[in-house]
Amino acid sequence: MKYAAGVDVGGTNMECGIVDELGHVLIKRKYPTHPERGADAILESIALALVQLREEVKIAANDIEVIGLGIPGLVDPEAGISLRAVNLNWNQVPVAAKLMELTGKPVFIDNDVRMYVYGEAVAGAGRGYDYVYGITIGTGLAAAFVQRGEIHRGHRFMAGEIGHVPLDHVSFACGCGRTGCLETIVSATGIAKQAQTRIEQGEGSVLSEWFTDVKDIRSSDVSRACLAGDDLSRDVLDQTGRELGRALAWVVPTLSPDVIVIGGGGALAGELIFKPMKDELHQRLLQDYRHHFDIKSAELSDTAGIIGSALWALHQHRQG
Amino acid sequence: MKYAAGVDVGGTNMECGIVDELGHVLIKRKYPTHPERGADAILESIALALVQLREEVKIAANDIEVIGLGIPGLVDPEAGISLRAVNLNWNQVPVAAKLMELTGKPVFIDNDVRMYVYGEAVAGAGRGYDYVYGITIGTGLAAAFVQRGEIHRGHRFMAGEIGHVPLDHVSFACGCGRTGCLETIVSATGIAKQAQTRIEQGEGSVLSEWFTDVKDIRSSDVSRACLAGDDLSRDVLDQTGRELGRALAWVVPTLSPDVIVIGGGGALAGELIFKPMKDELHQRLLQDYRHHFDIKSAELSDTAGIIGSALWALHQHRQG
Repeated sequence: MKYAAGVDVGGTNMECGIVDELGHVLIKRKYPTHPERGADAILESIALALVQLREEVKIAANDIEVIGLGIPGLVDPEAGISLRAVNLNWNQVPVAAKLMELTGKPVFIDNDVRMYVYGEAVAGAGRGYDYVYGITIGTGLAAAFVQRGEIHRGHRFMAGEIGHVPLDHVSFACGCGRTGCLETIVSATGIAKQAQTRIEQGEGSVLSEWFTDVKDIRSSDVSRACLAGDDLSRDVLDQTGRELGRALAWVVPTLSPDVIVIGGGGALAGELIFKPMKDELHQRLLQDYRHHFDIKSAELSDTAGIIGSALWALHQHRQG
Repeated sequence: MKYAAGVDVGGTNMECGIVDELGHVLIKRKYPTHPERGADAILESIALALVQLREEVKIAANDIEVIGLGIPGLVDPEAGISLRAVNLNWNQVPVAAKLMELTGKPVFIDNDVRMYVYGEAVAGAGRGYDYVYGITIGTGLAAAFVQRGEIHRGHRFMAGEIGHVPLDHVSFACGCGRTGCLETIVSATGIAKQAQTRIEQGEGSVLSEWFTDVKDIRSSDVSRACLAGDDLSRDVLDQTGRELGRALAWVVPTLSPDVIVIGGGGALAGELIFKPMKDELHQRLLQDYRHHFDIKSAELSDTAGIIGSALWALHQHRQG
């Protein structure tokens, strides 16, 4: 049996793990990223962590075939370069070459959302499907498409930034510098922001009894309040689901997936978002699309990124 | 040199042609379809037409390697079956098997819009690009995506029906039985309908001087009136372009094409539609997408379908 290392590099933490070729995680651990150290120090930590993890599970150095990394932001997977990762303060970092030098192993990198969705596609909720469209509802909203085991990256490796399509009736400021992007509504941040704004505008909610400062409201609180019967919270989750459904009404005829996998912290609201999303989506689709694809929650949680980057690296390496 | 036959089967006419492996059309001719004859008679006509065309250009029967057909509606290209073509009144017609029996040649079929876009991708406006998104603005609106020489078909071969996403602010009846679909605005039919409706509602236009019955107004008349300074016609084409731009704002981040090719009769309005479309689209895209893809008019006109189906058949056949 051969193994691969998978790393999900985030602005706060890095998840490192060792995965066998069937996608089983032998060991995984979370490390703080401390981006202020700079790219070289971070890559050295990753190399060191992978040696430690490998020794803990008693795997010989030679049995680690490849290393895969999921990196936020814009990545050139063919050149192995992180083009721009705002959270890490990385610009044009030759990640693959540097980590290969430190480890002696082939290194493959790609965008973190693509690695997450690839993990779900081959070892999670998308297993057994041919055309997997995966979405992560986290701080932001992004997506990736895996077609018969291959990742669709598109021109300049830019496919997937569905979160930044502006909605005409929304005026929230977006992190991208523009206004009303889909992810200002459909994201964990967006869910919290909708509740906060409506309470500030004078609407009643149990959340204003729970929190003295509305700024402390998180998306999980909105779900909790909804389950406790709070109308405002129900309406926020309903609107969020409906906006996602309207967006997916463009995606489904463009790609024709056989499954849509939804993950990320914002997806923990589950049916509170999924139900209105499905209603809106099905109502907007041609009869020929309706009910011919599944909608599923992600299954692998935090390990999707590790599994995805490890297995994608193996796949790339073996394909030559 | 080997050759392929390409056929674009429409409800009114069929375009038949012989193409060399570089995509040059040696001969092509248009025949009436007469769908009331039934599928068998139509396929016999095609077989006969191809023999005649081949003899006219003095190519030996053995030098025709394959036959490709573009068929409207829902097609199963793997099984070679036309699943449903409303205009032809075809249901579950085993086109490939029947035509192979009549001709002794391998036959490949696919949806007509995909064949048109493939033709443009390999031999027309999309030549030299890696990720070609093609749209035809005709009686309806449909699209296809060709990625590095391969057609994206999606689950149940259903990718591309972008014309049937409903728009909230539109109430025109659509041929699909629903209301407000994108193609009720963005199509040759939709352009004419918008002008007709606004004139019927009392708006002034030079078109009401040109036509005693507004039902006779065609999309080309709206372009002509616009060029003659008609404000209503300018506004109709402007709205049409803007709706297409808003739709493409979802497609670009989903696929990340490096070129968008626009063809079909409705695209003859050219910049009258393209200019507002680009304005709306660029304004809605992340900086990272903007100006990193081209927008071009289709170049092959009526031959795109013949060239596309012939070359796609060759490609499929040689790939095994």
